[in-house]
Amino acid sequence: MTKVTAQLSVSLDGFYAGPRHTGDGAWMASAEAAGFFRVTRWATDALAWRERQGFAGGVRDENSEIVAESFGAAGAYVMGRRMADGGEVPWGDDPPFRAPVFVVTHRSRETLVRQGGTSFTYVTDGVAAAVARAREAAGGKDVAVAGGGSLVRQVLRAGLLDELELHVVPVVLGTGLRLLDADLDLGEKEAIELTPVRVVPTGEVTHIRYRVEGRAPLVLDDRGSGGGPTTTR
Amino acid sequence: MTKVTAQLSVSLDGFYAGPRHTGDGAWMASAEAAGFFRVTRWATDALAWRERQGFAGGVRDENSEIVAESFGAAGAYVMGRRMADGGEVPWGDDPPFRAPVFVVTHRSRETLVRQGGTSFTYVTDGVAAAVARAREAAGGKDVAVAGGGSLVRQVLRAGLLDELELHVVPVVLGTGLRLLDADLDLGEKEAIELTPVRVVPTGEVTHIRYRVEGRAPLVLDDRGSGGGPTTTR
Repeated sequence: MTKVTAQLSVSLDGFYAGPRHTGDGAWMASAEAAGFFRVTRWATDALAWRERQGFAGGVRDENSEIVAESFGAAGAYVMGRRMADGGEVPWGDDPPFRAPVFVVTHRSRETLVRQGGTSFTYVTDGVAAAVARAREAAGGKDVAVAGGGSLVRQVLRAGLLDELELHVVPVVLGTGLRLLDADLDLGEKEAIELTPVRVVPTGEVTHIRYRVEGRAPLVLDDRGSGGGPTTTR
Repeated sequence: MTKVTAQLSVSLDGFYAGPRHTGDGAWMASAEAAGFFRVTRWATDALAWRERQGFAGGVRDENSEIVAESFGAAGAYVMGRRMADGGEVPWGDDPPFRAPVFVVTHRSRETLVRQGGTSFTYVTDGVAAAVARAREAAGGKDVAVAGGGSLVRQVLRAGLLDELELHVVPVVLGTGLRLLDADLDLGEKEAIELTPVRVVPTGEVTHIRYRVEGRAPLVLDDRGSGGGPTTTR
């Protein structure tokens, strides 16, 4: 059954990139890029990622298996407009997705068909519509929210996300673009509950996959000094 | 050899409590408390924690072993003033620490000796001095930064922390008191690097222990399409 999934590399303090680059200089030289490349290093070092990009070399390890698994599970992608624009030139004629990509944007544009099974379809009627179109195109495989972080947050906020895998990188950036930022539209004493369904620890990164359970009230759990019986789990 | 350690329960978005309670109402009824009790629920449910508090019942599981291990490793504690003030009444005559506690405060006060080996010594000459005094008192065991989050952050910022264990709870709070907040005094393209040394996944929480490596520049890793040989890890 098709799930809507997202996976993102984040620092220990929750950033998926450094502070947003807005100046005139090259993005590659920005603090945003420096943070982004630090938290994605485990992936860009991985053989499976490098093969998809047509890059030489790479490390064959558990991290590489995680990358391969992500690519393999996705039947279609949903992508934010900024990521799609930023990737269009570097991804070239043979982008790494090899599946239909639905770009959430305000600007209408003809579908862009690339080699290897990748196409970019521009969806102008919102996140839910883009997810619905990707679901139809996924052929029973998963719909993967490719990013960026702002789109992942929108999909989570809209209650459309089934699974979130965070690749938690052991670095504190201090500032930057935060995945789980304040605009999740949670009420007072309201939270989004999740369940960890798989943890893969490596030396470079901790991969934690969560099932998203949904919004729930924060109830004060007043077991205090009373408590129940002793149980074993 | 004595290490300086800290462990804190945090939500997936990095909060150790809800938004700070400043009003006149009871703290227990506040959003700050609701967030705090959600992220610490795995511990307050645990047999080892409840036994230390003199509370009935509890769950005997891996989470309880983690609590027992933390208590067992600490030869002395360093604690923030707000946490010490907030705990003084509820902890009563037999606080759960059973070791000397050094409270970082601006207000001088006589040492408070409690039962079971717990004492509270008020240190007015700063975080580093409190850590140094705790180190002397720890008898070769670890110095544990008991919290709150603001003190953990100060000890990390000062370069005094050897190990940080985060108990990452699968809940998104959206707002609250954040452990790794902006006042870490990191320069542009500077980060704090860590290494994960132990991951214990449970259904309720993911325990990740990090060794703190220290500050390091964020270097743009330009392997791009060049790359080296294929290696196996």
